[in-house]
Amino acid sequence: MTTQTLNAAILGASGYTGAETIRLLAHHANVRVGAITANAQAGRSLGDLFPHLHPFADRTLVKAEDVNWDGVDVAFGCLPHGASEELLGELPSHVTVIDLSADFRFRDPTAYATVYGRSHLHPEKTRNAVYGLTEFARAELAKKPDIIACPGCYPTATLLAIKPLVEAGVVSPRDIIVDAKSGVSGAGRGLKEGNLFCETAEGLHAYSVGNHRHAPEIEQELSHASGAPVLVNFTPHLVPMTRGELVTCHVKLANGATVDDVRATLEQRYADEAFVKLASKGASPDTRWVRGSNLCILAVFPDRIPGRVIVVGVIDNLVKGSGGQAIQNMNVAFGLPESQGLTMEPLFP
Amino acid sequence: MTTQTLNAAILGASGYTGAETIRLLAHHANVRVGAITANAQAGRSLGDLFPHLHPFADRTLVKAEDVNWDGVDVAFGCLPHGASEELLGELPSHVTVIDLSADFRFRDPTAYATVYGRSHLHPEKTRNAVYGLTEFARAELAKKPDIIACPGCYPTATLLAIKPLVEAGVVSPRDIIVDAKSGVSGAGRGLKEGNLFCETAEGLHAYSVGNHRHAPEIEQELSHASGAPVLVNFTPHLVPMTRGELVTCHVKLANGATVDDVRATLEQRYADEAFVKLASKGASPDTRWVRGSNLCILAVFPDRIPGRVIVVGVIDNLVKGSGGQAIQNMNVAFGLPESQGLTMEPLFP
Amino acid sequence: MTTQTLNAAILGASGYTGAETIRLLAHHANVRVGAITANAQAGRSLGDLFPHLHPFADRTLVKAEDVNWDGVDVAFGCLPHGASEELLGELPSHVTVIDLSADFRFRDPTAYATVYGRSHLHPEKTRNAVYGLTEFARAELAKKPDIIACPGCYPTATLLAIKPLVEAGVVSPRDIIVDAKSGVSGAGRGLKEGNLFCETAEGLHAYSVGNHRHAPEIEQELSHASGAPVLVNFTPHLVPMTRGELVTCHVKLANGATVDDVRATLEQRYADEAFVKLASKGASPDTRWVRGSNLCILAVFPDRIPGRVIVVGVIDNLVKGSGGQAIQNMNVAFGLPESQGLTMEPLFP
Amino acid sequence: MTTQTLNAAILGASGYTGAETIRLLAHHANVRVGAITANAQAGRSLGDLFPHLHPFADRTLVKAEDVNWDGVDVAFGCLPHGASEELLGELPSHVTVIDLSADFRFRDPTAYATVYGRSHLHPEKTRNAVYGLTEFARAELAKKPDIIACPGCYPTATLLAIKPLVEAGVVSPRDIIVDAKSGVSGAGRGLKEGNLFCETAEGLHAYSVGNHRHAPEIEQELSHASGAPVLVNFTPHLVPMTRGELVTCHVKLANGATVDDVRATLEQRYADEAFVKLASKGASPDTRWVRGSNLCILAVFPDRIPGRVIVVGVIDNLVKGSGGQAIQNMNVAFGLPESQGLTMEPLFP
Repeated sequence: MTTQTLNAAILGASGYTGAETIRLLAHHANVRVGAITANAQAGRSLGDLFPHLHPFADRTLVKAEDVNWDGVDVAFGCLPHGASEELLGELPSHVTVIDLSADFRFRDPTAYATVYGRSHLHPEKTRNAVYGLTEFARAELAKKPDIIACPGCYPTATLLAIKPLVEAGVVSPRDIIVDAKSGVSGAGRGLKEGNLFCETAEGLHAYSVGNHRHAPEIEQELSHASGAPVLVNFTPHLVPMTRGELVTCHVKLANGATVDDVRATLEQRYADEAFVKLASKGASPDTRWVRGSNLCILAVFPDRIPGRVIVVGVIDNLVKGSGGQAIQNMNVAFGLPESQGLTMEPLFP
Repeated sequence: MTTQTLNAAILGASGYTGAETIRLLAHHANVRVGAITANAQAGRSLGDLFPHLHPFADRTLVKAEDVNWDGVDVAFGCLPHGASEELLGELPSHVTVIDLSADFRFRDPTAYATVYGRSHLHPEKTRNAVYGLTEFARAELAKKPDIIACPGCYPTATLLAIKPLVEAGVVSPRDIIVDAKSGVSGAGRGLKEGNLFCETAEGLHAYSVGNHRHAPEIEQELSHASGAPVLVNFTPHLVPMTRGELVTCHVKLANGATVDDVRATLEQRYADEAFVKLASKGASPDTRWVRGSNLCILAVFPDRIPGRVIVVGVIDNLVKGSGGQAIQNMNVAFGLPESQGLTMEPLFP
Repeated sequence: MTTQTLNAAILGASGYTGAETIRLLAHHANVRVGAITANAQAGRSLGDLFPHLHPFADRTLVKAEDVNWDGVDVAFGCLPHGASEELLGELPSHVTVIDLSADFRFRDPTAYATVYGRSHLHPEKTRNAVYGLTEFARAELAKKPDIIACPGCYPTATLLAIKPLVEAGVVSPRDIIVDAKSGVSGAGRGLKEGNLFCETAEGLHAYSVGNHRHAPEIEQELSHASGAPVLVNFTPHLVPMTRGELVTCHVKLANGATVDDVRATLEQRYADEAFVKLASKGASPDTRWVRGSNLCILAVFPDRIPGRVIVVGVIDNLVKGSGGQAIQNMNVAFGLPESQGLTMEPLFP
Repeated sequence: MTTQTLNAAILGASGYTGAETIRLLAHHANVRVGAITANAQAGRSLGDLFPHLHPFADRTLVKAEDVNWDGVDVAFGCLPHGASEELLGELPSHVTVIDLSADFRFRDPTAYATVYGRSHLHPEKTRNAVYGLTEFARAELAKKPDIIACPGCYPTATLLAIKPLVEAGVVSPRDIIVDAKSGVSGAGRGLKEGNLFCETAEGLHAYSVGNHRHAPEIEQELSHASGAPVLVNFTPHLVPMTRGELVTCHVKLANGATVDDVRATLEQRYADEAFVKLASKGASPDTRWVRGSNLCILAVFPDRIPGRVIVVGVIDNLVKGSGGQAIQNMNVAFGLPESQGLTMEPLFP
């Protein structure tokens, strides 16, 4: 099975998510990158948009409508939400869709409509899509579903940090406070004043306080884990760095659990995982420890306030939070070794 | 009174705090910068250490023991804790001491000993020092106390954000979670690996989780405000920027108060303040809005979790969080206009 | 004369140049900021665009056509080239125009047309405008000309570094190589992919190699200084920092001059200048030494290649390279103290 | 031959050079990382010093004197100069030494003594060492010399840009001006004030103007290429970024050559190279195009001054400028595929 070569299409390659997926697939032993689309840039070469992608520099970008889907095994959807479901919902059934947008993350199409302000075009497909937080979805992924919805970057880090704790009942599903920090690449390559160097360097602010779209996504998964509706505080901040995401989860211990129990729960849950690790006791994870890699590093700290605990998690938002996890999901869905193409070490300094 | 000229000594001018105090005093109409000390650098010129301080470039640094205290009105203590109390506790009584270190911030010398790991050398002096969070200490400052202890940078931002709320009873003194973010200048000019560019740029981590020394200082003041012992979660993060500090305070509403009540409480409390402002409703304060200035900007946001509220505050850690507040305290103590020397606009971009 | 209050209009306040001019004028004892225009943003408050300009936050932006010019003494043109000459060429004659764009920098309208690709609308006005490199233009500025054309940021640093040397004949006007480096604010607030944080941080490139528009401007002034046509190599690089500009001028000694002669020439030329300084011998000027200030710091180094010398200059591109020099020119033109409003120290760290 | 597994020792793994060599070797199919030394840190785990090196986190650092050299095939010297020759000059003869320090870069021990201020301990060895600019040294490398001296980072970029031009006679060996820019990692992990974040971020300066140690190294190689002594201007600048190096070479055309000839010379010279590429005509290479990779990208631009040309080159100083080129040299010396372990794409954004 490991000698197969998958033909992969990249849909929406003009943004950072698409470029990162291509960068990672360049090293994948079982994938050939086929069609690369970017509707607004069709006809240009990929090297014009992303000179760092040297082996693909001469590839011509095409329109999605011009892709010949015969022989395509897997399509990575790197489009904005909305555009994503429009295209991906209509692909031929032999193509496995791995969507990096938000469009198929909600099992309930009504929830999607509320959060994203548009009725879902393919409600049945979102109901049946698999939420691809790999470490929690292997059984479903192995069935090679039609659509795999990759989690948002913040939900990935947050859920890896606290979903096992809510499942195990060692922390309370109430008053979960997720204070999150992200580098600027999370905002994409769009031309917005807030993404300019001069508006981003040497400063810091919170954004979307109380109404970020990743909060309902986190809540969906934690509600599922706890068996009852969960609301979370989710407060993201924009940090003057390109890559990296850190979540600081301030939670309450439950059912008599101690801080050590919390740590033990995570250690046990991730003992056999290749990409989720606990930092040495007392060490505070830094986003530099994961930059460019598919790793998530977690740590547990006692709070000064008795009965509380702090769980910190770091990922590279463009790898484990985006293109890397997408490939990890593909590996599981196609029966390939799960780490295939994802073994690069972090780039430091 | 405004025509007086104070003779100010700067003690410990080899670090960023001392340099910033000098930078600010260069514009002060009522101050002449006299002796400038830096024991390990005595004999060198200030321009060698800080070429940006052009008007003082030729000043020779002297040892503290060589200062002639005759005629000195005010001494700014910019030394590390420990060194600070050793020197400042022994100054002639005609010198008003404005200490920027941690040494005189605790009214209870035992608390100091616990937090800083050394018995206080001058317990009476710390008991009688005024905790110089200017907006809350004017009456005491106006008596020109022997020692004014300037608050730490984090306590300054945190207390300006939530002390009025605890005092007014609109938020609960329990489960206060202060998730803080600071630029690297807060760590000083010391040669530590963690302060190197390559270890700080393009990344982020939490530090001193659960045991940062500013937590007990915040607790001292909030306990005083609430009338009962308060414990706070205080979780600082090191952000790849030079200046700026942002605190995200996750708190619970109390006594039936609403988010609007919280906002109204702050608006009322700071209506007449020159340096503490509320952002326009919905706007999220950025540290760039205050860089280089003595301002603190606050904002209030509803939490997704009912019964909770988020209060954000930003300051420049080296100005309102250090040298600027020190000068503001001097102005009050000596009966000068409180904004004297502190009216510069933030530097943006 | 120093007790006059000038009524200043700011034309084009939605960019960094306009904002910086306002920031600086906020401290100016002889100026009242009157009309503030931004055609595309008319009706919005300045605080919406630039929250750091606290004292002006409530000012409403107006269209240039709606300004009442009665009583306006001076207009700062902070518009893009082209838009600038369209507006400024038509202002009432009682208004002194200080233009920060490129539109009136060329004495020869044909040169302007060649470089900027458009015929000059007001050829007589550009012929008569004063090129406001203050230290070299005081006599003309003192006549209060109709239009003062402020030099570009790169020409400011370059000409301060080498114009006196060409004038004195100690360096050759041939094979002048200016290798320049600028922070990102020099590119303005426009929404261009190249100005995004992720495209600018953690990297470096040269741009407009061999054809930057500031080269002919430098050449105009050096040709004038040398009495014969001069061509210069001008190679700018975009550096991941917000403010600051550094020029490294690689030039040949002439007429038997030595490196010491070069240094002496600059020392003598700028001995009485408030804003142009030489670094201590051997010290290498850093843009941090001038950030936020109107200073230019120069240094002279021997080259390894005999007969050559290296002259380095640093400025803050938004102050001495833009708004600060504009105000300095206004001060001279109106007979005010030249340093009025410009005495702030650099912000470091 | 490609199925061999080399046993590699890393000497001096507490700095960035050593860590980067280990990071790259982690992906090398023919190398097993054996002993890892760091004398001052012996007994600590590598994960303590470099948490990003996850697969090696548990490796214990040892003293160089405790290494068992039996079975060691290759030793990477990642020590400071001086310490390097002391250790590497004494290794058993079966160990191929690949030195990343400056100690064996000079064929003439006297030149070394002049530049580095110490007599060479092993003058015969430095005379016989191979200067490992891989693309110019394959024949010598293939003989598996005792010592391979990897070029400095600046000489690597500079020589790749202009050595073929001097060899071909299309540019003059006189008045070569190399204006260089480097990220901070080039300065190493040492605790120096100049390497602190607050002293490096948001600013720029030139350093070692006229006397940087890489100038004589460049001169040695260009003198060899031209057949006569060459002196170069070499002016490095410290840029606020971690990785990346850019050289802007300002040179004169010779022997009637044109700018197109210069470009053609480079294209021809590097047509078959895996790691040295020319940018598309008109494109300006950015260090982001090579970050984390072993690539060097070059570009050629006409100067405004007739008879001159500008050649720009970019590398990642820690890869092609250090650990990557070292591994490339090992590959050639041991008959492995030259790109083995070095095919990773640049990390962007």
